[in-house]
Amino acid sequence: MNKFSIGVDLGGTNLRIAAVDETGHLVEKVTLGTKVSLGRDHVLNDMCEAIQRLSQKYGNSGALFGIGIGVPGIIDMQTGLLRESPNLPGWADYPVRDEIERRLNTMVILENDANVAAFGEQWLGAAKEQEDMAMLTLGTGVGGGLVLGGKIWHGMNGMAGEFGHSTVEPEGQPCGCGNRGCLEQYASATAVVRMAREAIAQNEACTLARAAHADAEFSAKSIYNLAIQGDEDARRIFRRVGRALGIVLSAMVNALNLPIYVIGGGVASAWDAFGPAIFEELRHRCMVYAATAPADPLASAAGASAHVEPGPGRKTIITRALLGSDAGLYGAARLPMIAEAKR
Amino acid sequence: MNKFSIGVDLGGTNLRIAAVDETGHLVEKVTLGTKVSLGRDHVLNDMCEAIQRLSQKYGNSGALFGIGIGVPGIIDMQTGLLRESPNLPGWADYPVRDEIERRLNTMVILENDANVAAFGEQWLGAAKEQEDMAMLTLGTGVGGGLVLGGKIWHGMNGMAGEFGHSTVEPEGQPCGCGNRGCLEQYASATAVVRMAREAIAQNEACTLARAAHADAEFSAKSIYNLAIQGDEDARRIFRRVGRALGIVLSAMVNALNLPIYVIGGGVASAWDAFGPAIFEELRHRCMVYAATAPADPLASAAGASAHVEPGPGRKTIITRALLGSDAGLYGAARLPMIAEAKR
Repeated sequence: MNKFSIGVDLGGTNLRIAAVDETGHLVEKVTLGTKVSLGRDHVLNDMCEAIQRLSQKYGNSGALFGIGIGVPGIIDMQTGLLRESPNLPGWADYPVRDEIERRLNTMVILENDANVAAFGEQWLGAAKEQEDMAMLTLGTGVGGGLVLGGKIWHGMNGMAGEFGHSTVEPEGQPCGCGNRGCLEQYASATAVVRMAREAIAQNEACTLARAAHADAEFSAKSIYNLAIQGDEDARRIFRRVGRALGIVLSAMVNALNLPIYVIGGGVASAWDAFGPAIFEELRHRCMVYAATAPADPLASAAGASAHVEPGPGRKTIITRALLGSDAGLYGAARLPMIAEAKR
Repeated sequence: MNKFSIGVDLGGTNLRIAAVDETGHLVEKVTLGTKVSLGRDHVLNDMCEAIQRLSQKYGNSGALFGIGIGVPGIIDMQTGLLRESPNLPGWADYPVRDEIERRLNTMVILENDANVAAFGEQWLGAAKEQEDMAMLTLGTGVGGGLVLGGKIWHGMNGMAGEFGHSTVEPEGQPCGCGNRGCLEQYASATAVVRMAREAIAQNEACTLARAAHADAEFSAKSIYNLAIQGDEDARRIFRRVGRALGIVLSAMVNALNLPIYVIGGGVASAWDAFGPAIFEELRHRCMVYAATAPADPLASAAGASAHVEPGPGRKTIITRALLGSDAGLYGAARLPMIAEAKR
C-alpha cells in the first residue's frame, strides 16, 4: 500500500474516521455517532480507538503521514486549541491537538471543518487541479473555506473563510454571530425551514403547511421535494437561497477573481432548485463574472469535475461539490501529507 | 544615488510621474494635466517625454529598474492591454505597455490604479511591514486592492480587488457596473453628493440646500465641511458612508482575516465624519473583528503607521491611508523593483 493518512470529521452528530492513501484512495471509513452528551473524554476515547485500529491495520503495509482532524469551530492554529465550537459543548479552549498527539504519538493537525471540506474538493473534487478556489458549505449553518496557491488561507488568526456571515440584507434576520441578514440566514438548511415556516405563518403556502403538519421532521429536504414537484411556495424559498448566494458570490468573484467557487453541504443537493437564481444574480450583479462567464454555467456546473482553461481568457466557474460528505475526510487526511511534503 | 524606478499615475484628470529610489525616497515628481480630449497619442507623448527627462536626469547616478504605470480600468496582465477604462476614452484594447516599452526601450509594468495605491501603502504607508493587506480607495468611484504575501493579488484574469462593487443594499441605488446598491453608491465622492442632493430634494436639509445653491462646485468636501460644523444632515450622510464601508469591511474581515485594511482616496479626508460608523458596524456585524478588535480602533486608526503584533493574539486594524495621492506613484514605482528582484 501507499503511504497513508487518517482523516477525521468530528461533527456535532457524526464522528467519521477514514484511512486515505497518498493517491487519494479511501481505504476504509468508520462512522460513529458523536456521543456529545457523554462528554469530551468519551468522544476522544472513541476517536483515538478508531484511529489506532486503522493505523495498526494499515501501518504494516505503508507508513502513516499523521492525522488530520476537521472540527466545527474556530481553531487557534498556533496552539491547536479549539477556541469556540457551539456544536461541541465543553471543548472550548481544550488542547485537542496536543492531547491526541500525546495519546497516539503521531503528528496531529487540527483544522476548521469548512476549510478541510474546501481542501478535499480542491484535492480530489470539483476544484481538482486548481490552485485557487473557494467553497461554501451549506449545512445547518453556512461554512466557508478558501484555498490560495494550493494552501488553505487561514488569515492571521486562522479565522478566514467565514463567507457565511457576509451581510446579504443589512436589516435582515438576526444571526447567532451578532450580525443581521447573514448569508447563513438565507442559505442554510435551518434558514430554508425558517423561511418555510414564515410563509406558513403568513397564511400562505398551503402545501407547505400541510407538509409541515404531516411531517414531524419537516426539513429542508421535505421542502426541496415539494419544490421539485412544482410547489410555487417551496420554489420561491429556494430562489431566495440562490439570490442570497448570488449576492455573496458576486462580491467574492469581484474581490478575488478565482477560477472556481464550489457549493457543497447537504443543501447543495437542492442545486437544481437554487442554482439558476445564483447565475441570474451573478449576471446582473457581478462585473467580473460578466466579463469571465462561461457560455452555459448550468451545463458546466451540472457536469463532472469542471475543466477550466488556463490563461487570460479563463472563465469563472461556480459549481456543485463532488465529494459529498466525504470532502472533509479527504481534506483532513490531506493535511499531514502536505505538512510532510513541506519538511 | 540608489537604483530607481519611474512611477506613473495616469488618471482621467492628472498625469503624474515620479522618480522613486529603491529606499522609497521620492526624488522628483512631475504633475501634468491628462489632456484626454487631445487624444491618446498626445497623452502618451506627454508621458513618455516626462519619463525620458527624469530617466536621463537621474540615470547617470543610478540604474533604472523600469517603469510602473497605474491606470484606471481593467488590465489584462498577460498582454498589457487596457481592457476597459471609462475615464480614458479611446484607450480600450490598446497595447499601452508594449507601445511605451517600444518608445522607451525599458521594462514597463501596467497595473490597475487601486492596486498600485494598495501596493504603495503596503510598501511605505499605513500597512508598512505587513505582508497581507487590503485597501479601499474612496474617490469618484470606490477602488480596491489586495496584497497577499507581499504581492498584488490579481486573481486569474487580473480583475481581483473590486471591493467597491460588493452589494450593500440588494435593492439599492443602481450602479454603473450593472449591480444595485454597490458600496461605490454609498462611499464614493459621487455618492456623497448624490445623497446630499437626495436629502435636499426631499425638502429636508436646509443648510445643505443653501450650500448647494451658493456653491457652484458643491462637492463631497463642501458637505464634509458642513458635517464638521455640526450640520446634522451632512453628518447623517457620512454616517451612511461609514455604515456601507462597515458592512463591506465586515465581510472582508470575516472572509480574509487580514491584519490590516486601509481606507484611502479623497473621501478618506472625511475619516472623522465616517470612521466611527465603520467601527460601530464592525463591532456588531463582524464575528472575526469582534474576536480580534483592538481596544480603541479609533485611537490606533488616527495614529501614524499602525503597529500590529505578530502571533495568535494579533489584532485587526482598520486605518486611514498615509500616503495620500502619492500612494499610487510609490506603488507604481515599486512594481519594476519587485519584478527585478524576482529575476
